[in-house]
Amino acid sequence: MRRLKVELANRGYDILIGRKLLSQPELIGNCLPTPRTALVSNTTVSALYRDLLESGLKSLGIEVTPVILPDGEVYKTWESLNQIFDALLAARCDRATTIIALGGGVIGDLAGFAAASYQRGVPFIQIPTTLLSQVDSSVGGKTGINHPRGKNMVGAFWQPKLVLADTDTLQSLPARELSAGLAEVIKYGLIRDLPFLEWLEANMDGLMARDGELLAQAVERSCANKAEVVAADELETAKEGGRALLNLGHTFGHAIETGMGYGEWLHGEAVAAGTVMAAELSCRLGWLSRGDVDRAVHLLRRAGLPVRGPGLGAARYLELMSHDKKVIAGCLRLVLLKGIGNAVTSAEAPAKEIAAAIEACCDA
Amino acid sequence: MRRLKVELANRGYDILIGRKLLSQPELIGNCLPTPRTALVSNTTVSALYRDLLESGLKSLGIEVTPVILPDGEVYKTWESLNQIFDALLAARCDRATTIIALGGGVIGDLAGFAAASYQRGVPFIQIPTTLLSQVDSSVGGKTGINHPRGKNMVGAFWQPKLVLADTDTLQSLPARELSAGLAEVIKYGLIRDLPFLEWLEANMDGLMARDGELLAQAVERSCANKAEVVAADELETAKEGGRALLNLGHTFGHAIETGMGYGEWLHGEAVAAGTVMAAELSCRLGWLSRGDVDRAVHLLRRAGLPVRGPGLGAARYLELMSHDKKVIAGCLRLVLLKGIGNAVTSAEAPAKEIAAAIEACCDA
Repeated sequence: MRRLKVELANRGYDILIGRKLLSQPELIGNCLPTPRTALVSNTTVSALYRDLLESGLKSLGIEVTPVILPDGEVYKTWESLNQIFDALLAARCDRATTIIALGGGVIGDLAGFAAASYQRGVPFIQIPTTLLSQVDSSVGGKTGINHPRGKNMVGAFWQPKLVLADTDTLQSLPARELSAGLAEVIKYGLIRDLPFLEWLEANMDGLMARDGELLAQAVERSCANKAEVVAADELETAKEGGRALLNLGHTFGHAIETGMGYGEWLHGEAVAAGTVMAAELSCRLGWLSRGDVDRAVHLLRRAGLPVRGPGLGAARYLELMSHDKKVIAGCLRLVLLKGIGNAVTSAEAPAKEIAAAIEACCDA
Repeated sequence: MRRLKVELANRGYDILIGRKLLSQPELIGNCLPTPRTALVSNTTVSALYRDLLESGLKSLGIEVTPVILPDGEVYKTWESLNQIFDALLAARCDRATTIIALGGGVIGDLAGFAAASYQRGVPFIQIPTTLLSQVDSSVGGKTGINHPRGKNMVGAFWQPKLVLADTDTLQSLPARELSAGLAEVIKYGLIRDLPFLEWLEANMDGLMARDGELLAQAVERSCANKAEVVAADELETAKEGGRALLNLGHTFGHAIETGMGYGEWLHGEAVAAGTVMAAELSCRLGWLSRGDVDRAVHLLRRAGLPVRGPGLGAARYLELMSHDKKVIAGCLRLVLLKGIGNAVTSAEAPAKEIAAAIEACCDA
C-alpha cells in the first residue's frame, strides 16, 4: 500500500493506493468519529463491491445506511442529491455520520456535495473505483452537480477525510472508462511533469493491458501531482496558474459534454479531444511546436481516446465555453501549453484563433 | 453609523448598523471585487426598497441582476434556490459576481446558500430588512434551505463580506415580525448577557413603539453578542457551549415550525414558545428558579410573543426534535438555563422530564 498526504491546514488527509484495500475495513474504521456511515454508490458498482465493503464495516460494528443511485452522468442532478438527503433523514443520520462514496466521479461528486451540505457538513470518505476518479476527481475536494446550462455549476469545496484507491477495482472497468481515466493521467504529464509523460510513453501498452503494478504507479504519480497543486491553491484562487492548470482541455471538453448532452461522451473522452484543441491553439499562438502537438495526439490515441471533437460548429463551442467557471468579467481564460510539461492560464487567445483551433480539431 | 467587526481568520467582516444605509451604495461598492451583482429579494421587500438600492448601485456603474422570489418560509426550498441559479446562469454571472440578499432570514438563507454553491462559491453581502435577520440570521454565515423532514437540513457555512443593517427598514415591518425579532434579542440576554436583559426590561415599551435609537442599540448589542460567539466557534464544533447556545428554544421551536407546517408560526414566535419550554425544563431540573421562569415569560409577553406552544402532544414534539442537528449518536442535546444570563448545552434531561415540560407549556 502506498500512502500520499494532501497537505492542507487543519484538513490534511491521506490517499491510500494499493491492492485489496476494500478488504481492509479498519482503514476506514480508523477515520470515523462515530461508528455510523452512509454508503452512497450506484447500481453497477454496488453489485460488484458493496457486499465486500458493507460486511467488512459491519464486522467492525459500524452501522451502514446504503443509498444506491442509478448509474450515469445524467443522474448528477439535484434529484439524485435529494434522494441522498431523503435517505439520510429517513435513517436519522446525524452530523457525525460519515458519508462514504463508492464509485466513480459522478458518485464522488454527488456524495461529496451531499456531505458538504447535509446539516451544513458531515465527514466524507472517497472510495473511487474508476481510474478517472482515482487519479483526479476523488482528490482535492471539488464536489457538485450539473445544471442544464453547464457542468458542475452548483457545488462546494469539501475535502474528504480519506481517499482509498483500491487498484484492483480497475480490472472490472469497461475499456472505454479505462481510456477516459488515462486522459487525466496524460494531462498531468502535459501540464507539469515531463518525466511522467515520458514514462507514460514507455508504458502505455502495459497500462492498456491493465498491468496492476503499472496502474498503481500511474495512480500514485497522478495523485502526487494533484496533491501538490491542490495544496498550493486549494480554492482555485491563484490569479495565474495554480489549480486552474488541472483544467487543461476541460473548457473545450465541458462544451462537448454539454453540447452533446451529458452521458454521450465520457468526461475523459471530452477532455482528450479538448486537450488536442488546447494544444492546437497553443501551436497557432506560436507557443507549442507542431511536433509537440502530434506527440500529445499520438499518446492520447494510444490510450484509446478520441482526438477530434464532434462537429457542433465553432460558434456553438464558443457559446458553451462562455459559461465556463474560469470566465471572469466576460473574459475567457484558457489553459494552454508553452511546451510539453508546461501549462499556463491565458486570456490572450483571440476568439478568431480559438474558433480556428476548434474547427481544425472537429469532425465536419 | 455603528461598525462591528466579526473576527474570523481570513474571513472577518464588518456589520454596519444605522439609519439611511440603503441610500449609501458606496458602502456596498467598496466591497465588490468586480462591479457585478445579483440582487436576491422577495416581492414584498422588493416593492419597498429595491428601486432605492438598485438605482444607487447603478449610479456607481455597478451591474445588477435582480432575482425576485415569492415571500414566505414555505419558499425556502430547493425550487427557489434553483430559480436563483437559473437567473445567475441566464445572466452569465461569473465567480466574481457578488450576490446581495435584500430581505429577511428566508432571503438571506436562500441567497447565502446560493452564494456558497454557485460555481462552488461567490462573494456574498447581507442586507437584512427584518429585526430577526438584523440581530441573528444575517450574522455568522449559516445558510440553507428546509427539507420536508426538518428545517435548515441542507445548507452551508458561508460568511458574508459585509452585513448592512439599515434600521429604518424596521419601521415598515409588520408588528408580528417586530415581535418575532425581539424573541432573538431577548435570547441574547437570557443566554449570556444579564445587563442587556435588564436593559430590555427597562426599554421594552420603547422598542415596541419602534423608537429608532433604541432599536439601533438593541441591534448593535445583539450583533455584538452574536459576533463574539461566532468568532469563538465558527462552525459549531465546540463540544460544550459555544455556538450551540444561540439555539436556546430552537430545538423546541423547530418542532413547532415543522409540526405546524412552515409559515404558520414565524420562526421567532416558535423560538419564544420554545424558550419558555427550555426555561420550564431547566426549572424542573432544579437549575432555574420559578421566579426566573416567570421573568422570562413576562418579558416575552411584553414583546407581543406567544409563550405557549401548539398542542401537538409531547410524543410528536419528541419525534420532531429527534431530527435536530444537535443530535449526535442518538443523543438529544438541549440548550438549557442555569440561571438568567447563563445557558449551557446538556444531554442530561430525561425524555420524561422533557415531555412533562412540553405538556406544561402547550395549549391543550
